[in-house]
Amino acid sequence: MRICIAQTRVRAAALEQNFAAMRSAIEKAQRDDSDLIVFPEMALPGYFLGDAWERPSFLKRCQDYVERIAALSNNIAVIFGSVGIDANSRNEDGRIRKYNAAFVAQNGTLLHNSSTNLPFWPKTLLPNYREFDDSRHFFDLRKLAIERNVSLENLLKPVALMKRDGSKVVVGIGLCEDAWDEDYSSKPYSILCQNEKRPDLLINLSCSPFTKGKQHKRRQLFSKKSNDLNLPIVYVNAVGSQNIGKTIFSFDGQSGIYSGDSFTPTAEAFVESIETISLTNPSTSPNASGSVASNQTDEVRLALESGLSFIRDEWGLEKVVIGVSGGIDSALSTVLHARVFGEKNITCINLPSKFNSQLTINAARSLATNINCSFASLSIEESVALTLRQLDEARLQGLPISTPLSTLVPENIQARDRGSRLIAGVASALGAIFPCNANKSEMTVGYSTLYGDHAGYLAPLGDLWKADVYDLCHHYNSVVYGREIIPSATLSVVPSAELSAQQDVTRGQGDPLYYPYHDALFRLWVEEWNRYDFESTLEAWENGTLSKILGTAAEQYLSNTFKTRDEFIKDLCRWWNAYVGMGAFKRVQAPPVLALTRRAFGFDHREAIGLHLARGK
Amino acid sequence: MRICIAQTRVRAAALEQNFAAMRSAIEKAQRDDSDLIVFPEMALPGYFLGDAWERPSFLKRCQDYVERIAALSNNIAVIFGSVGIDANSRNEDGRIRKYNAAFVAQNGTLLHNSSTNLPFWPKTLLPNYREFDDSRHFFDLRKLAIERNVSLENLLKPVALMKRDGSKVVVGIGLCEDAWDEDYSSKPYSILCQNEKRPDLLINLSCSPFTKGKQHKRRQLFSKKSNDLNLPIVYVNAVGSQNIGKTIFSFDGQSGIYSGDSFTPTAEAFVESIETISLTNPSTSPNASGSVASNQTDEVRLALESGLSFIRDEWGLEKVVIGVSGGIDSALSTVLHARVFGEKNITCINLPSKFNSQLTINAARSLATNINCSFASLSIEESVALTLRQLDEARLQGLPISTPLSTLVPENIQARDRGSRLIAGVASALGAIFPCNANKSEMTVGYSTLYGDHAGYLAPLGDLWKADVYDLCHHYNSVVYGREIIPSATLSVVPSAELSAQQDVTRGQGDPLYYPYHDALFRLWVEEWNRYDFESTLEAWENGTLSKILGTAAEQYLSNTFKTRDEFIKDLCRWWNAYVGMGAFKRVQAPPVLALTRRAFGFDHREAIGLHLARGK
Repeated sequence: MRICIAQTRVRAAALEQNFAAMRSAIEKAQRDDSDLIVFPEMALPGYFLGDAWERPSFLKRCQDYVERIAALSNNIAVIFGSVGIDANSRNEDGRIRKYNAAFVAQNGTLLHNSSTNLPFWPKTLLPNYREFDDSRHFFDLRKLAIERNVSLENLLKPVALMKRDGSKVVVGIGLCEDAWDEDYSSKPYSILCQNEKRPDLLINLSCSPFTKGKQHKRRQLFSKKSNDLNLPIVYVNAVGSQNIGKTIFSFDGQSGIYSGDSFTPTAEAFVESIETISLTNPSTSPNASGSVASNQTDEVRLALESGLSFIRDEWGLEKVVIGVSGGIDSALSTVLHARVFGEKNITCINLPSKFNSQLTINAARSLATNINCSFASLSIEESVALTLRQLDEARLQGLPISTPLSTLVPENIQARDRGSRLIAGVASALGAIFPCNANKSEMTVGYSTLYGDHAGYLAPLGDLWKADVYDLCHHYNSVVYGREIIPSATLSVVPSAELSAQQDVTRGQGDPLYYPYHDALFRLWVEEWNRYDFESTLEAWENGTLSKILGTAAEQYLSNTFKTRDEFIKDLCRWWNAYVGMGAFKRVQAPPVLALTRRAFGFDHREAIGLHLARGK
Repeated sequence: MRICIAQTRVRAAALEQNFAAMRSAIEKAQRDDSDLIVFPEMALPGYFLGDAWERPSFLKRCQDYVERIAALSNNIAVIFGSVGIDANSRNEDGRIRKYNAAFVAQNGTLLHNSSTNLPFWPKTLLPNYREFDDSRHFFDLRKLAIERNVSLENLLKPVALMKRDGSKVVVGIGLCEDAWDEDYSSKPYSILCQNEKRPDLLINLSCSPFTKGKQHKRRQLFSKKSNDLNLPIVYVNAVGSQNIGKTIFSFDGQSGIYSGDSFTPTAEAFVESIETISLTNPSTSPNASGSVASNQTDEVRLALESGLSFIRDEWGLEKVVIGVSGGIDSALSTVLHARVFGEKNITCINLPSKFNSQLTINAARSLATNINCSFASLSIEESVALTLRQLDEARLQGLPISTPLSTLVPENIQARDRGSRLIAGVASALGAIFPCNANKSEMTVGYSTLYGDHAGYLAPLGDLWKADVYDLCHHYNSVVYGREIIPSATLSVVPSAELSAQQDVTRGQGDPLYYPYHDALFRLWVEEWNRYDFESTLEAWENGTLSKILGTAAEQYLSNTFKTRDEFIKDLCRWWNAYVGMGAFKRVQAPPVLALTRRAFGFDHREAIGLHLARGK
């Protein structure tokens, strides 16, 4: 049996484009004598559509396109994901009933699902954690079983398809989460396999975003399932970029056939691919790679570059202005954007005040030279002085502005002057966008100025801890380019905002964070599946387990720095409150983040502002 | 039977504060000889906690406080909402199993729920629409029924409580959505009433945010249920403010007893109240009001002022700087803040450029005079000129900045100069916050400048259409104050950004929106339960139904303005694409919105950036 695995690029709500991609995939599969072509989950409408599912007119167009796909299924069986409508029933929100469903077409027409009496196969398990919101929009097979007062086994059965040679093949169809059944009391694939008509193969249609380590988990999970059920599993995942406003996800594909312990990939990660493969004798196509990349840092590099290039395409972006400080974050952002947008589309601007060292100013210029992009230097001194003069004027007009000003006031004036006045002004004049170069460490505790360095069209580094930023910079220099693209001064200078005389890098004065410790701490609060809070962190410190939990680099810092409970608590309280207080407040107004870990800020890190501030006792 | 209805102010995740409020309520109820005290849903932990539910240490503390509440239940039965933990089972996300639950305590101890074998009564129906995210965090009784392979009737039974006189009373307990069962196949209260041990009364614990018209709907729904089931329903809802980052909800309480068609309120809306009432002979307490306010505009005023004062308290805010343009939005924002924060804490600053008319400058000054708050005028001319000079300088350094600049460039420079340089600078120097004065019409289509007038700690008007803003301003002048607080010039001037010579209010030149038409149009896209999109709007225009759908004011504009299909489409396409494109992009970085309608931007309007752009064919 020949199966075409259509790892298509799925665009959110772009029915016409998705249909066109699917049509040409079907035509290729027909030319390649495929018996069956399988598309990803929600291949037609896209998956992360927010509340656009509530537009009846969009749903109607989805149905029209489903019919048009079905009409193409001559001499081939077509399985694809789309939204299934049951116009005669209501969802629990009172709107028209919708399913996340697989459609099956053959001989130019849709197959009817006699088990449910619907023209599609609904998803059974709806993920409702992380970035997933399925049960907000979709009804599912479990709810249908309750409503109809029947068992799930009655509704979930394999389907028989005709091969080109006229013989039949029985397939068990599931959608994404249906395979990730570990924590559910219902196991869809087991139910399918227990059916009297045992399937010859299983199919999983996915729309599963990339996050670090997920492919490893997928390999384990699908191999185990294939072994347990003693059947091959055809896994088809989308590529492309879909966002939920605050968080932008990249889809890595990684489609292929799982058969026992072996996985035969049919495509490169993050790349559209329409590849026919023999189920009985699968062989990897020349372009396919079994894993995302050679190592974890390169995996992240590939995900960043792929994600950013998807975004560039989706949003029709062309030119980029980057405020380069000579520091590590803006350097990485510049390299990334240069690789994706091309260096001729990059403009670096350096915006010194009297507090910026020649060291970092030179590093900024070197970076632009190394990358071969245009560069300008514009001072913020005159404007900052003007703003301070106007504060004096306001005082003279009677406003109770104290003098001298708190040091934070001129610091933030500088940051906003760079971000909102000059970078935004230059970008606007060039018809360009500009990124926010904040990393995840800074975003966690709001160590940035709103409307200043917090501003930008996207925070491409917003899901990278400070150590990840360094790793990637070294990786670009040593592996990707094999030469010094990011200046050594940038790599060696102490991380610093350079906004006051107290942040003088030439005297080694920098950020108030010791990243090897604080990153590990923040990760406990943000990324752990069972997240730590102020109290449990303190408890771990008190019972002596914290240093073990945080790892070696943090261990030393912990024992060297905090001699008393009060000292430990003071630091803990400062950063915990920054995380849940001002950090949360600033994240509400942060640019979108490109998701890389299993917990990026935004839709997968839902939070209230000012929740659970600690009082440090 | 005497029931104490504890309409407490519930603070998100503030266990200690919530516990203290509950303890003093129980003490009052005991003094008032109550047989039973009922608290809101999630009265102990708060409800909108984002993903803080994933912190095991927080859950453990919730359990500790549940025990502490139970210990207080001497001579009284206590029913309260909190998170129910089943540490031996998993949620479907693999985390510890949690329920949104009611706890029942008597004689100093928690009652055991023998139907479920859990020490609490779980919620059956979990809302998963609008701002609600219950099934992300909580297991429910329907899932438990499937898992245990029993019917819901086995798990959902009334509970018998002891009154002070030693007799028994049987109560059917439900949580919020359990009563809103219209679109669910399971009806919890009906199941409770069909039990062999028929309840004497029903109780509904709610944590139900205010939105326009909701109290009307509650009255209908609970009266109908009371009639249908022929039992009184004790309704207890929280007051206070809880946010989900982007969207801030106010809780209006409106607790009381539904008995057939009659509703006996026990409290003022939005006000904490611990009131004991006789179930058999209920009478309204002197402070209680049956409806939110006298009319719709006053209802919104009350909700705005209450919501804002909750936020002020929650976040510990004190001083406010407001950029006043002389226009209607900043005027309303100033009045609102003055009423909530006190006029002595308000500073108005007017920030003219050469494009601002004396008309609006004078109106801004009059407003500050009328309110009696401090005022300063600071020009942006010098800074804007400096920025333009620096763009020239960048051009001389080789950046391909075209000359002359597009008109949008200096317009946005002005807006950002006001917001991010001066208003933010003055606020920072005064230790104050500053609001974003954008209304819902502007927010819908992104008619504002990022880091300019889009900036602020909160958008208090972000859920008010332009017409609502006018209504409220007139209401303040004519009803609330009975004199001209908001200057008549502000009320009569054409709405305009005054950012160019083409936006000259003295020549009647203003915004590109005709609000009576465009607001009605935007409402179709944003607020309709079954939302319109580009295609269905066009279809309605084509088949002649649009003007009827949009109402009278829009009808005239429609017929006068668009003579051809192309003219109509051009305008439609412009604003639709602004809504789903740049508008969505800007909303990601918008300040939090105070929710007033049933669809505020943010968590109840989940959206992807750049989705479904129309091509205007």
